[in-house]
Amino acid sequence: MSATANTIPAYLPLRNDLIGEEPYGAPQLDVPVCLNVNENPYAPDPAVCEAIARRVLEIAPTLNRYPDREHIALRRAFSDYIARESGVRLDVDQLWGANGSNEIMLQLFQAFGGPGRTALGADPTYSMYPEYARDTFTGWRLAHRNPDFTLDLDALVAAIGDIRPSMVLITSPNNPTGTPLPLEDVERVLDACRDIQVAGAADGVRPIVVIDEAYVEFRTPGTPSAVELIERHPNLAVSRTMSKAFAFAGARVGYLAASKGIIDCMRIVRMPYHLSAVTQAAALAAFEHTDEQLARVDHLRQVREDTAAWLKTQTYQGEPLQVAESGSNFLLFGGRFDDRDAIFDGLLARGVLIRTVGPAGWMRVCMGTDEEMAHFRDALVETLRDVEAR
Amino acid sequence: MSATANTIPAYLPLRNDLIGEEPYGAPQLDVPVCLNVNENPYAPDPAVCEAIARRVLEIAPTLNRYPDREHIALRRAFSDYIARESGVRLDVDQLWGANGSNEIMLQLFQAFGGPGRTALGADPTYSMYPEYARDTFTGWRLAHRNPDFTLDLDALVAAIGDIRPSMVLITSPNNPTGTPLPLEDVERVLDACRDIQVAGAADGVRPIVVIDEAYVEFRTPGTPSAVELIERHPNLAVSRTMSKAFAFAGARVGYLAASKGIIDCMRIVRMPYHLSAVTQAAALAAFEHTDEQLARVDHLRQVREDTAAWLKTQTYQGEPLQVAESGSNFLLFGGRFDDRDAIFDGLLARGVLIRTVGPAGWMRVCMGTDEEMAHFRDALVETLRDVEAR
Repeated sequence: MSATANTIPAYLPLRNDLIGEEPYGAPQLDVPVCLNVNENPYAPDPAVCEAIARRVLEIAPTLNRYPDREHIALRRAFSDYIARESGVRLDVDQLWGANGSNEIMLQLFQAFGGPGRTALGADPTYSMYPEYARDTFTGWRLAHRNPDFTLDLDALVAAIGDIRPSMVLITSPNNPTGTPLPLEDVERVLDACRDIQVAGAADGVRPIVVIDEAYVEFRTPGTPSAVELIERHPNLAVSRTMSKAFAFAGARVGYLAASKGIIDCMRIVRMPYHLSAVTQAAALAAFEHTDEQLARVDHLRQVREDTAAWLKTQTYQGEPLQVAESGSNFLLFGGRFDDRDAIFDGLLARGVLIRTVGPAGWMRVCMGTDEEMAHFRDALVETLRDVEAR
Repeated sequence: MSATANTIPAYLPLRNDLIGEEPYGAPQLDVPVCLNVNENPYAPDPAVCEAIARRVLEIAPTLNRYPDREHIALRRAFSDYIARESGVRLDVDQLWGANGSNEIMLQLFQAFGGPGRTALGADPTYSMYPEYARDTFTGWRLAHRNPDFTLDLDALVAAIGDIRPSMVLITSPNNPTGTPLPLEDVERVLDACRDIQVAGAADGVRPIVVIDEAYVEFRTPGTPSAVELIERHPNLAVSRTMSKAFAFAGARVGYLAASKGIIDCMRIVRMPYHLSAVTQAAALAAFEHTDEQLARVDHLRQVREDTAAWLKTQTYQGEPLQVAESGSNFLLFGGRFDDRDAIFDGLLARGVLIRTVGPAGWMRVCMGTDEEMAHFRDALVETLRDVEAR
C-alpha cells in the first residue's frame, strides 16, 4: 500500500508553504503494546457498546436528512457532564461540539486567527498547535516554560505584551509533559490579557485565552478546572475531548466551553452540518454511561503514580531517570537520553510503541493496562541495558 | 433557545472579515414538507439501518483507539462503488473520504487556495463555495453562465487565462440550476488549464479543475461522469457525496476521486483522524446495500421529469413558468417571479419549505415523496393565485 508515501508532482498548485510537508501524525504500526498516542487502554464497557448501537439504530431511519446543525441534545449532555465532573453548570449556548478537539481547535484558529494574527503558546506544548496555525495562516509564537515545565508566567505575560496575540493557548495538563496548571496561573494570564490590544484589530479587542483540557479528568481529584472561570471571563475558552478519559478516541468528539460570544464565533466558521447524526447519537449513548466510561480513570491515575515511582528507580548511564510531574494519563521521562531514537527502536523491537516527542532527552509513554505496563517495564530495562552497552 | 441569534461582543478578536457575518445554512424549520436542502426523501431501507447498527456494534469495543487515519477499507468501498456506478476502476490511492463533501471541498481549498491564490467558479453556482474561499483566505471569482445556465465556455476559458486561478470549480450537475455538464466541456476546461501558469506559483504549476458531482447519480442514465477523465488528467479532482442518492446526509460522508498526487495534498491538510471509526463503519454498512440505497434514484428522476412537465403547465402573471433543465434531484423554476419571498412565504404558510436561492426570479424545489410533491403542487397553485391577486 503506497498510501503513506507522498509523491506530489510539481505541476500541482499545492500552497507554497506546504511544499515538502508530510502528513501529521504518529506512525500507526501494528505492535502488541501501543503506548504512543495517549489512548485509554480500556475498551468501552459492553453496556456502552450496546447503547451506542441502539442509539445509532434509532436514528438510522433519519439518515436521509441532515443532522441537527446546532446539536442541541449533545450540547445539553456536555453541560450535564461538566456540571457533574467539575461542579459548574453552563448553558447550552456556552457549549459547542466538533469532530475531536482537533476540529474545535481548528475552528478557534479559523475564527480568531488568520493572516496578520498571532497565536502564542508555552513551549514545550502539543505538537498539533503549529499545524492549526499553518492551516489558517496564523503566526505561531512560543514563550518558554520553566525547566520543570511549569509556566514561566513572567515570560508568558511579557510575551503577551510584546506580541499582542489574538489567542493565548495553554494546555492543562500540558502535553507532552503532563504538567498540571494551577487555576491561579490561568487567572494571571487572563488578567494579563485584559489590557492588551490585539495587534491589527480594532480598539478594545483583546486576546482570547484557550485552555486545552484534553486530559483534565486525570488531574488530582479536587483540583479545579478552568471551566470555573468561564462565567467571569468572556474571553476564556476551555477545550475538552471525549477521546481520553471517556475512551472514545475512535468516535471523534471534542467540545468547547466558553462564553456565548465565543461559541457564536465558532458557529460562523463551522461547516454546516459538521457533526453527523451518527456521531451525535454515539456521544449521547456514551454519556448515558458516564460511570462505566470513567471507571478506569482512577485506576489509570494510580498506574501513572506507580509507573512514575518505578521509572525514578531506573538508571541510565549511572543517573536515575527523571520523570516530569504529570496530571495526565502519560509520563514524560528520561531527561538525559542522549540517543532517544535508539531507545525508541529498542522498545519497538520488543513490541512496545511509545513516542519520541518533547524536549531533547525525553520520551513520552502513556498508561496502558497492567499487563501492558509490565511489558513496558521489562522492555525498558532490557533496552536501557542494551543501549548503555553499545 | 437563543442558540440561533448571534451576539458577538466587540472585545472578542473575531477575524475582521467575519465581523457581521451570520452562520451559513438554510433555516432548519419544523415543517411538514421539507423540499429545501435537496435531501433524499426516502429513509434508508430497514436492512441498511440494521447493517449500520451491526457494523457500529462490531467496532464499538475499539472506540478507545483512534480510527484508521487512512480509512483504507472505506476508500476501497468508494473504489468499488465508482467502478459499479461509473464503470471506472480507481486505486485506493486515488480516493479520499471526509465528513461530507463540505469537508472535501474545504480541504481542497486548504491545500490549493490561500492568500494570493484565486478560485474560479461559474455563476450561478453552489452558495457554499464563497464560504470555503473566505475560510481559507482564497480569492473567489466568477465567470457567468449562459442564460440557459449551461457553461459559457468562451467566457470561462478567457477568465482562466486572465485570472490564472489555482482552482477552477464546476458543479456537475450544477446547483442550484440542475444543469447537466457534458464531458466535452470538462475536457475543454482541462485543456484550457494545461498551458496556464498559476498566479503566484512556481514555473510549471497549473490549475486544478474540481468537478463537484454531489448529485451525479441523478443524471440521465448513460451520461458519463468526470471520473472517466481522471486517469488522463492528474490535475482533475471529482468530488462526490453519499448525502443525496445514497440517502445518507445525516452520516456526513463525502469523497474525492483524483490523481494520487492530489490525494497526497489532502493528506497534508487533513486533521489527523478526521474521519471517525463510527462514520467509517456506517458508510461501509451503507455500501453493503448499494442496491437498496439507490433503488429510489430512478423514481426520483421520474418525479423530476413529471414535476418539470407540470410546472411548465402553470402560469404566473399570464406567462408559463420557466423550468431549468435538470440532471439532479431538484428543479430551478419560475424565471419571472417578481416577489419570490412572497411565494416562499405562501408555500411555507401551507406547510411546504423550498429554497429562495439562485438568480433573481427563480426558486429551487427538491424532489420529495409522491405525497410531498402532491402537497407542493397544491400549495404552489394556491400561492401563485394569492400572490397574483394582491
